[in-house]
Amino acid sequence: MASMLHEVEVGSQSLASYASLVDQALIDEILELAKGLKGCRLLHLSATSYGGGVAELLRSEVPLQRDLGLHADWKVIHADEKFFSVTKAFHNALQGAEYTLTEEAKETYLTYNTRNAQQLEEAYDCIIVHDPQPAAIPALRGKDGSKWVWRCHIDTSYPNPQVWAFLKPFIAFYDGVIFTMGQFVPSDIGVREVALIAPAIDPLAPKNMDIPLEMCRRIINSIGVDVDRPLITQVSRFDPWKDPCGVVDAYRIAKKEFPDLQLAMVGSMALDDPESWRIYSMIREYVQDDKDAHVFTNFIGVGNVEVNAFQRLSQVGVQKSIREGFGLVVSETLWKGTPMVAGRAGGIPIQLEDGVSGYLIDNVEQCADRIIDLLKDRDLARKMGERGREKVRREFLMPRLVRDKLAFLRSLH
Amino acid sequence: MASMLHEVEVGSQSLASYASLVDQALIDEILELAKGLKGCRLLHLSATSYGGGVAELLRSEVPLQRDLGLHADWKVIHADEKFFSVTKAFHNALQGAEYTLTEEAKETYLTYNTRNAQQLEEAYDCIIVHDPQPAAIPALRGKDGSKWVWRCHIDTSYPNPQVWAFLKPFIAFYDGVIFTMGQFVPSDIGVREVALIAPAIDPLAPKNMDIPLEMCRRIINSIGVDVDRPLITQVSRFDPWKDPCGVVDAYRIAKKEFPDLQLAMVGSMALDDPESWRIYSMIREYVQDDKDAHVFTNFIGVGNVEVNAFQRLSQVGVQKSIREGFGLVVSETLWKGTPMVAGRAGGIPIQLEDGVSGYLIDNVEQCADRIIDLLKDRDLARKMGERGREKVRREFLMPRLVRDKLAFLRSLH
Repeated sequence: MASMLHEVEVGSQSLASYASLVDQALIDEILELAKGLKGCRLLHLSATSYGGGVAELLRSEVPLQRDLGLHADWKVIHADEKFFSVTKAFHNALQGAEYTLTEEAKETYLTYNTRNAQQLEEAYDCIIVHDPQPAAIPALRGKDGSKWVWRCHIDTSYPNPQVWAFLKPFIAFYDGVIFTMGQFVPSDIGVREVALIAPAIDPLAPKNMDIPLEMCRRIINSIGVDVDRPLITQVSRFDPWKDPCGVVDAYRIAKKEFPDLQLAMVGSMALDDPESWRIYSMIREYVQDDKDAHVFTNFIGVGNVEVNAFQRLSQVGVQKSIREGFGLVVSETLWKGTPMVAGRAGGIPIQLEDGVSGYLIDNVEQCADRIIDLLKDRDLARKMGERGREKVRREFLMPRLVRDKLAFLRSLH
Repeated sequence: MASMLHEVEVGSQSLASYASLVDQALIDEILELAKGLKGCRLLHLSATSYGGGVAELLRSEVPLQRDLGLHADWKVIHADEKFFSVTKAFHNALQGAEYTLTEEAKETYLTYNTRNAQQLEEAYDCIIVHDPQPAAIPALRGKDGSKWVWRCHIDTSYPNPQVWAFLKPFIAFYDGVIFTMGQFVPSDIGVREVALIAPAIDPLAPKNMDIPLEMCRRIINSIGVDVDRPLITQVSRFDPWKDPCGVVDAYRIAKKEFPDLQLAMVGSMALDDPESWRIYSMIREYVQDDKDAHVFTNFIGVGNVEVNAFQRLSQVGVQKSIREGFGLVVSETLWKGTPMVAGRAGGIPIQLEDGVSGYLIDNVEQCADRIIDLLKDRDLARKMGERGREKVRREFLMPRLVRDKLAFLRSLH
């Protein structure tokens, strides 16, 4: 007999806690939309309960949906390394990577999806399936009265044709799909209801909550960064698309003008991601003799609150991405009133207004020049940071996402 | 030509910042001792700049020694996986593990120590060498006018005879040695000056600093723990000697009496420690279906501040060690006013007074009974927590360690 899917425990949260942060009109709109969905049995289905943006979003979104009267659950599929190595390859391929789809990979994908489809026992009014890992489940179960939504968090603008051709029939089964940005929607999606919903940050989560300045200073000082000298920070996974060496190069140029300048590169590494260890070692090698260029990871006790402190205390946030999904770290940083210099890639331009809350850049020299501009003109930096925070407040906080999701759910009924 | 050893950057700190936390007499004593050491060129030599207790201690100790007028540096040796796999085996063997010392291991150890001995260029009045990894350096350099101190942080009460016989001649070269506790000193140490200095916690570091209660609640809530229900926490590496399954067993017994009870097991994992991943998976397997038994790691953004929040919000701290070095987590927890139930092992009994600031236990049943006692009697728990904090304040805060170290350095001159 099949065991049930694992349900994820999330904290509790109320929409009222956000009342002082977002406009009352948004709160009212959410409450109005929620009226029509009270008691709605909603399930989120995803691959993992931790690690990565999807889990982070759901940890904030599910408690709010519950607070609004929906019966919202979150379950994760049963799978193991064999399955995840296939879906990781699918993930990269859907973002455009070269990949040859084998019969074995297809079989692995379908075997695990079939098993999980059988293990989904409870009935729901609506089931939101996140990302490609569990995407075939509804088609493998067949119509059962639930509305099915595929929430794609990745950039599928130019998907690998083989993988997309394999997945497309499963996607066609859905009642609706949600993408992050219009440019991510494959041209031949073949589902009627398509919504575009940008991700959002949770201003009350440990990574974004207010922290007293003195506490930030203590956190940063304790790991060897001088809080009285200028600091620029890139928070990102250790990934070639985040151009870590380009960040170091830009810092070195800026350091000629500001000899006191410090750089912090802060990132998380996962046990199952040897690529990130390789990049990490490469960066360490690249900065080696420079005592002012720091590389910090979760292995030295840098967690969400520490990341928050870095974003608050930096004079400039850097995100020198060459390629990017949405790049929510830009909103995270701007929310702390810190201006950004960031690559013109993925969702970055919709968060960061060039010349308003920081600068969009296309290469190392521009990156260095703009960092220098912001270090020189502290008043400009402060103003840009404030404008950035205001834009994030209006567009990229969790209640806006909750509103968009409710509106889409309403449209399906 | 040999490159120089890598110098570690640490933050800045002043003894004055601790004035409101420790007795004035201790501050005065430290200032008096420091007078005789002004300008003293002191070097700490260790294996790594992050990860583990030694690095954590030095990040707090070195800034204070600088504040007191010593010229204190901290350098780490150059080495790689080949060397560290040998020294890790030495480490375990010195703590009593079975091990067959090979000629190859000896050669690796000596080759790296010789190379690092050559790379140590600057002159120092005193060099404190931490743990076994760089321990042969002074003997390999020969007498040079420096005072050499070996600071052994590990439990060498019953060292593996082969490894100890190999290292002993190198240790005999030292002017002084420091152990954590009397019972850790090998009976045939053969060095005249032996000091016993217990480790200490830094009350101003992110892991121990005061955090507003509301912020703690937000941190804990955000990862799915209900802050309004009772919580017990064990913070420890994932290691069989910490008896993680015993902790779960004790929790299950206590949960029969307190059905609302939650357990958090919080630990860090290192990339280079596959044993810890194995134990982690084993614990996950062991608690699987219990939504109230959580296992949290650095891989989900749990850093030092998050650990701090767990220790503050728990009704009872647990450290069910079967074997322990010093077990400084006991002081960390007591410092937050949280009573402890902990195994009678290593340095735990000198931090935790049985029946005063918690309970020493020898098995699962005792552990469960004592947890239940503390959950039942909140007033007792509060009092025990207060007494624990006061003992830590008097004996296990960083200034006490700084005083002991200065006193020992004075005694060598």
